[in-house]
Amino acid sequence: MSQLYASLFYQSDVTTIFSDRSLLSYMIQAEVALAKAQAQVNVIPREMATIIEQVGQSALTQIDFDALVVATGLAGNIAIPFVKQFTAIVKQQDEQASRYVHWGATSQDIIDTATILQCRDALAMIEKQLQSAYQISLQQAERYRDQVMIGRTWLQQALPITLGHKFARYAAALKRDLDRLQAMKTRVFTAQLGGAVGSFASLQNQGSAVVEAFAAELGLTTPECTWHGERDRIVEIASLLAMIVGNVGKMAKDWSLLMQTEIAEVYEPTAKGRGGSSTMPHKRNPVAAASILAAANRVPALMASVYQSMVQDHERALGAWHAEWLAIPEIFQLCAGALERSNEVLQAIDVNAEAMQRNLESTQGLIMAEAVMMALASKIGRLNAHHVVEQACQQAIAQQTHLKNILSNLDEVKEHFSAQALDELFKPESYIGNIQMQIDSVLKAGQGDSQ
Amino acid sequence: MSQLYASLFYQSDVTTIFSDRSLLSYMIQAEVALAKAQAQVNVIPREMATIIEQVGQSALTQIDFDALVVATGLAGNIAIPFVKQFTAIVKQQDEQASRYVHWGATSQDIIDTATILQCRDALAMIEKQLQSAYQISLQQAERYRDQVMIGRTWLQQALPITLGHKFARYAAALKRDLDRLQAMKTRVFTAQLGGAVGSFASLQNQGSAVVEAFAAELGLTTPECTWHGERDRIVEIASLLAMIVGNVGKMAKDWSLLMQTEIAEVYEPTAKGRGGSSTMPHKRNPVAAASILAAANRVPALMASVYQSMVQDHERALGAWHAEWLAIPEIFQLCAGALERSNEVLQAIDVNAEAMQRNLESTQGLIMAEAVMMALASKIGRLNAHHVVEQACQQAIAQQTHLKNILSNLDEVKEHFSAQALDELFKPESYIGNIQMQIDSVLKAGQGDSQ
Amino acid sequence: MSQLYASLFYQSDVTTIFSDRSLLSYMIQAEVALAKAQAQVNVIPREMATIIEQVGQSALTQIDFDALVVATGLAGNIAIPFVKQFTAIVKQQDEQASRYVHWGATSQDIIDTATILQCRDALAMIEKQLQSAYQISLQQAERYRDQVMIGRTWLQQALPITLGHKFARYAAALKRDLDRLQAMKTRVFTAQLGGAVGSFASLQNQGSAVVEAFAAELGLTTPECTWHGERDRIVEIASLLAMIVGNVGKMAKDWSLLMQTEIAEVYEPTAKGRGGSSTMPHKRNPVAAASILAAANRVPALMASVYQSMVQDHERALGAWHAEWLAIPEIFQLCAGALERSNEVLQAIDVNAEAMQRNLESTQGLIMAEAVMMALASKIGRLNAHHVVEQACQQAIAQQTHLKNILSNLDEVKEHFSAQALDELFKPESYIGNIQMQIDSVLKAGQGDSQ
Amino acid sequence: MSQLYASLFYQSDVTTIFSDRSLLSYMIQAEVALAKAQAQVNVIPREMATIIEQVGQSALTQIDFDALVVATGLAGNIAIPFVKQFTAIVKQQDEQASRYVHWGATSQDIIDTATILQCRDALAMIEKQLQSAYQISLQQAERYRDQVMIGRTWLQQALPITLGHKFARYAAALKRDLDRLQAMKTRVFTAQLGGAVGSFASLQNQGSAVVEAFAAELGLTTPECTWHGERDRIVEIASLLAMIVGNVGKMAKDWSLLMQTEIAEVYEPTAKGRGGSSTMPHKRNPVAAASILAAANRVPALMASVYQSMVQDHERALGAWHAEWLAIPEIFQLCAGALERSNEVLQAIDVNAEAMQRNLESTQGLIMAEAVMMALASKIGRLNAHHVVEQACQQAIAQQTHLKNILSNLDEVKEHFSAQALDELFKPESYIGNIQMQIDSVLKAGQGDSQ
Repeated sequence: MSQLYASLFYQSDVTTIFSDRSLLSYMIQAEVALAKAQAQVNVIPREMATIIEQVGQSALTQIDFDALVVATGLAGNIAIPFVKQFTAIVKQQDEQASRYVHWGATSQDIIDTATILQCRDALAMIEKQLQSAYQISLQQAERYRDQVMIGRTWLQQALPITLGHKFARYAAALKRDLDRLQAMKTRVFTAQLGGAVGSFASLQNQGSAVVEAFAAELGLTTPECTWHGERDRIVEIASLLAMIVGNVGKMAKDWSLLMQTEIAEVYEPTAKGRGGSSTMPHKRNPVAAASILAAANRVPALMASVYQSMVQDHERALGAWHAEWLAIPEIFQLCAGALERSNEVLQAIDVNAEAMQRNLESTQGLIMAEAVMMALASKIGRLNAHHVVEQACQQAIAQQTHLKNILSNLDEVKEHFSAQALDELFKPESYIGNIQMQIDSVLKAGQGDSQ
Repeated sequence: MSQLYASLFYQSDVTTIFSDRSLLSYMIQAEVALAKAQAQVNVIPREMATIIEQVGQSALTQIDFDALVVATGLAGNIAIPFVKQFTAIVKQQDEQASRYVHWGATSQDIIDTATILQCRDALAMIEKQLQSAYQISLQQAERYRDQVMIGRTWLQQALPITLGHKFARYAAALKRDLDRLQAMKTRVFTAQLGGAVGSFASLQNQGSAVVEAFAAELGLTTPECTWHGERDRIVEIASLLAMIVGNVGKMAKDWSLLMQTEIAEVYEPTAKGRGGSSTMPHKRNPVAAASILAAANRVPALMASVYQSMVQDHERALGAWHAEWLAIPEIFQLCAGALERSNEVLQAIDVNAEAMQRNLESTQGLIMAEAVMMALASKIGRLNAHHVVEQACQQAIAQQTHLKNILSNLDEVKEHFSAQALDELFKPESYIGNIQMQIDSVLKAGQGDSQ
Repeated sequence: MSQLYASLFYQSDVTTIFSDRSLLSYMIQAEVALAKAQAQVNVIPREMATIIEQVGQSALTQIDFDALVVATGLAGNIAIPFVKQFTAIVKQQDEQASRYVHWGATSQDIIDTATILQCRDALAMIEKQLQSAYQISLQQAERYRDQVMIGRTWLQQALPITLGHKFARYAAALKRDLDRLQAMKTRVFTAQLGGAVGSFASLQNQGSAVVEAFAAELGLTTPECTWHGERDRIVEIASLLAMIVGNVGKMAKDWSLLMQTEIAEVYEPTAKGRGGSSTMPHKRNPVAAASILAAANRVPALMASVYQSMVQDHERALGAWHAEWLAIPEIFQLCAGALERSNEVLQAIDVNAEAMQRNLESTQGLIMAEAVMMALASKIGRLNAHHVVEQACQQAIAQQTHLKNILSNLDEVKEHFSAQALDELFKPESYIGNIQMQIDSVLKAGQGDSQ
Repeated sequence: MSQLYASLFYQSDVTTIFSDRSLLSYMIQAEVALAKAQAQVNVIPREMATIIEQVGQSALTQIDFDALVVATGLAGNIAIPFVKQFTAIVKQQDEQASRYVHWGATSQDIIDTATILQCRDALAMIEKQLQSAYQISLQQAERYRDQVMIGRTWLQQALPITLGHKFARYAAALKRDLDRLQAMKTRVFTAQLGGAVGSFASLQNQGSAVVEAFAAELGLTTPECTWHGERDRIVEIASLLAMIVGNVGKMAKDWSLLMQTEIAEVYEPTAKGRGGSSTMPHKRNPVAAASILAAANRVPALMASVYQSMVQDHERALGAWHAEWLAIPEIFQLCAGALERSNEVLQAIDVNAEAMQRNLESTQGLIMAEAVMMALASKIGRLNAHHVVEQACQQAIAQQTHLKNILSNLDEVKEHFSAQALDELFKPESYIGNIQMQIDSVLKAGQGDSQ
């Protein structure tokens, strides 16, 4: 992954968490926790753990990164050469202590635990971003609750809504993602420790106590049993990220469509160097949307890889486990990038109320045909009303005139509606059903949430 | 989807739920609930709702299926021609009542609500299957907790485990799926009702009351706002099914590998016409595993489609929504099929203890090298023990003899271990670490669950 | 796959080819060809082959379909129970002949060969559809070569193009697909025959001659070696279909966007029951586009399954091979369905030239800023021209007036351009670069093709 | 993408081609070619092009990479800030020349053309790797043509093959990939040049001549029309790479299964630091296979993204085009990495003939039941032979003895076969059908190829 593309698609904090150096530091953290846990249970001498912990604090700077790169290619995973180097670094300090590094563990214990620690830290970032997206959406739902605009279905104008309803729907989806995130935490932040086949064989009957101490040391939950080959925790995390990306992808889709020159109802906030064109002064490209939509194209495909990788061989797999290493960081980074850009836009979205009004008028009253028909029905019966309005619509289309012009000349209409009453009927804001109550429901759920 | 393939990959009850006829009956259920809800709120006359309800009870038999097929292709969805036919059927009974059919609703309200009803019924089936898979796995974990076998990593023999540990790990994964299913229920069984753009415009300020009554009528939760364009509920359901398929895919992978002629440790249960070959009498094909693995290949790919389809346009989308209609039933059916076959195998798996013993012997003691080294370490120091055992292993491999034969001739070993003690060290069951405690943890969690 | 959805997403001829009955008839064809080939090489008596051939002609009607469905689920593939039934049907006619049915072959020989025959027939249909799409696109490119419209990039108005150029680009892509199809034919229509492990062991040294005769009998090429586990031929076919779906998906995307109420430049042809709405008379839903876009969402995901299934075990695989059975027919049917709908639209697309003109005007001349600048540059230098026009654009935007109004008052402009000359500069058709030459190139390539 | 993982999954030359610096150098190459082409057609002064060309030679070193990273995030693509910097670098040399940089082109022209140049260079590498894999497979097919081993279907022992047949099948698949690569070259190495909407508007009627000169300058073919929105060329390249990955994925699957401890028939070549374990001396992990299988898990999923991205908006898309930038380099790198590791293994695969022999014996003659039955059939009739052998197999299984022991005591057998003749029948090499002829066919095709 290039740095050039990173600035387009990623978010820097989460990218840092998944950097090579950061991965190594999480692995050091796991090795140190292992030593400390084993010292607690008296599997290894306490002073040996202390030395390992001390060395761990500065070990990252002593890692020979280039050697690691070469050795990883041969070893088939990062942990094997890392443990060798880390052991050597400890040995420089204290030979005896070095014999207790990685005691009884397997590569996958360290990589899986490091991965869970990465996921926890990255999810904390994403939770903040998500919370922010939710709060902003609530604010915008409130702010624009009366901003009438046309609702569109199948890319066609349909009936009026308000912009606040759009934001309320976004907010409700983001809240569900937040709820999912809370619920998920109890299941997924779990330590992995079991040695070669998950039995922690070399520790005999002390294994379970060490696993418990290890998990506690890292603030993770203790697994009932090892899960080297049962990857559902990792997959659950990824699947939530994919849902979040889908939810913000939907928003980006909306505003990229609303930014179309002919529609022009909302715009991404302006910034120097963003989205303009010197020779096409009318352009304002949806640059943030492009990034988010690219993420929403990629993450679903990466999920196929992740789900596929659940089919693992025996106690610890090859290939399928490897595939995770590439997909999980990518999904996290794309999700964080998509959220960052979404928040920038949600916060400072540029709303063009005039254009919304203009577009509401563009069918010359046809979007209000149903509203008029409903009103007329109460006076002349529904069947008759339907007939009258349908005819009027056809005439309006044929004559390229406003539907009101046709209707205002009809006796059936004049009899029951004054010109002013007819004007009222054609006001889009009079035909938005229970939108305000829906917005209230969403806002109320948001208040409950922040208490 | 052919019937021929259905018998291979699907499960009949869930397939029935997703049949054309069944879909129509869920749609009728939604239309009837709509009428009843509107009668409760006095939006339509109560007697009209009663007629619609009565007609609904037998409407399915009156649907002209062939006409529906033709009209669906033109209309772009099933609901439009269905509503026309259903209205006509009501009209035969009572013209006035027919005017209140589908009052204020949009096609997607009916299709989405019907989909949620299908999902609820199908998930109830899947929960049963999953519960069954979990309980059987627990029983097998208990039954085979002492059945020693070799654990394998990277497809290579590694260290001993017990078969019970394998089942315990499966059980733990299935329990997590059950937990996810419980947690998910509160979020996803939600009614959809909002008319063209989600505002339920024609009902004016009565919309929210009708939505609430509608949801109650169907035993669904009331959404805070319409979710025509926010598809995360549907996706969440599918993503759980995909995790289940991944978890049973892992099991099927295991037993297909364990059924290999050279390994032969477990077999799918025999059945007439299943997996044998008259000209190759030694063959016993993993027929159920093939089905499950095919599902585990397909469902991840279908998930890519499902996640992708979250990127919807405006208030109601085209294309992306359509893509759900094909993917969701397929995922459900493949998941139910995979679970059915998994349960058949889990329940009656044919365990070959002799082969397990033979395979434990096939490295001539090398798999116990670590165990021996650990024991020797306590007598002669770890470094020395490592050196001695490593040398011995090389000799054993070179001479194609049992490691014990080499070690029993070494003074360092003889000094500390009698022949009998050495025999003990080479017993695989003596080197399974905390496996029994892990099994206990899983069993205990299972007991808590069934209380 | 439901019949209801089939009418939305599929094409009937190709669906028929992939029906259960049709699959069985291709399998019968393969078995008959096998018997005939073996008779030619004197592996089995000629009269036995004749009987098998005769029985084959009516065997389909004698198949007990329900029994087949049950047995398939147990056997793990369709061929095993099919061969049993077919053998029994032959036996009713002639016991001795029945002993030569399926002689030396394996299930996969029959299923793979039948699949290739299905693919060949279905590809012939798709080639016709593709040829038709190509020819219509060429005609429309010619017809609309001068129909100016705004070109859009990043969903924003950019510079003018002609509708003919759009069709020319479509045509060029379709031609590449046709070229790919021609090139592919030589590689993929290949027989499969090799018995259990591909060695055709029971035929000893006569195997190769039988394979050659078998392939000739079916009009397929003879493989250099069996390809039970090397699935690239199947995958190549699918990958071409996926490219076709992508190419028509792009078209459907275009016209669904152009049908937006605010843009309204082209429409899908009208048909009774298609895309309209009685209560929203202004709506004209892109029904065909929705179908095509759903296919373009699904087929990429199915391709993930197909590529994944190339990773096969040993001589003949389990699971991965099974996954093909579901994905390949689905991809074919979605491709044919997407092409059918594309052709309907391409043929009778409803072009609204007035709307195109209106949209060209909607930026009040800004889309012509570059054109004006280029013209001015030749008079007053490029830097100066850029400065003048940029300023003018800002004024025009600020004053919400037409750019021409601003420019026509500037001395630098008036000095070099009369009012009429300025009018000319603002004509979109004067700024379409080499579009006509591009259209000519595409048309010329098309003429070469039909000679 | 981390460097650590790169050493595991990628190949260094192809990774270099897709590095950030390399991408910039391809973009400079495109800009220089554009200037030269325009000078040839007299669109810009020749001396200006010369200056641009000269500056281009060293421009890469002057790029401010950090500034580029920041600006790319805002601009939405790499080309916009790159062109600004490149123009500034030219301006330092010659202000006038700087005005002709990127003349009339759009960002996508430069990025697409640079991408095609990258693909061409990377495909040349991959073609070499593929050619090498093919030639090695041919050599191994020849070398091991008589090395008998058991063929396996559904992961079960079936009938004997030779190792050479396996390699011949691999070789045939690789040859098809080479054929596809050759055929594809004529379609995909095509320049992109058309300005904002593909019309090259600012060049008026000189556009086509410039495109032609531009393509010639870069050794690319001239497109009939611009293809900003028709991405099938890019997708075709990716789809071939995915087929290659699938084909080598199948090989890696084979050898990872054959390396299983209980099978042990072939091994990846040994190397220091590769695949061993100090505490589990019997382990020899399939490290290369793990890498390749991870690629074979990921590339199919990335293809879903690539196919999906064909659905582009109008003249130039957002989001879908962006998604390509991440997927294409990743697919190339994974393909090259998989090929590199495949070639290492194919070249030096470690074959254990003894284990092959041992495994052929492991069913105690049952794998030869069909061979014996065929031989007996010619003496006592097929039905009778079938009956006799079936009974004998059951007895052999029940008594856990060799099938030959049972048969040699049967009168029907003794009557027709001496002990020696029976021994012959049980030799696996006597029952490999037309395998040698198949190998010859594949070898012959290979000779034709190298002439």
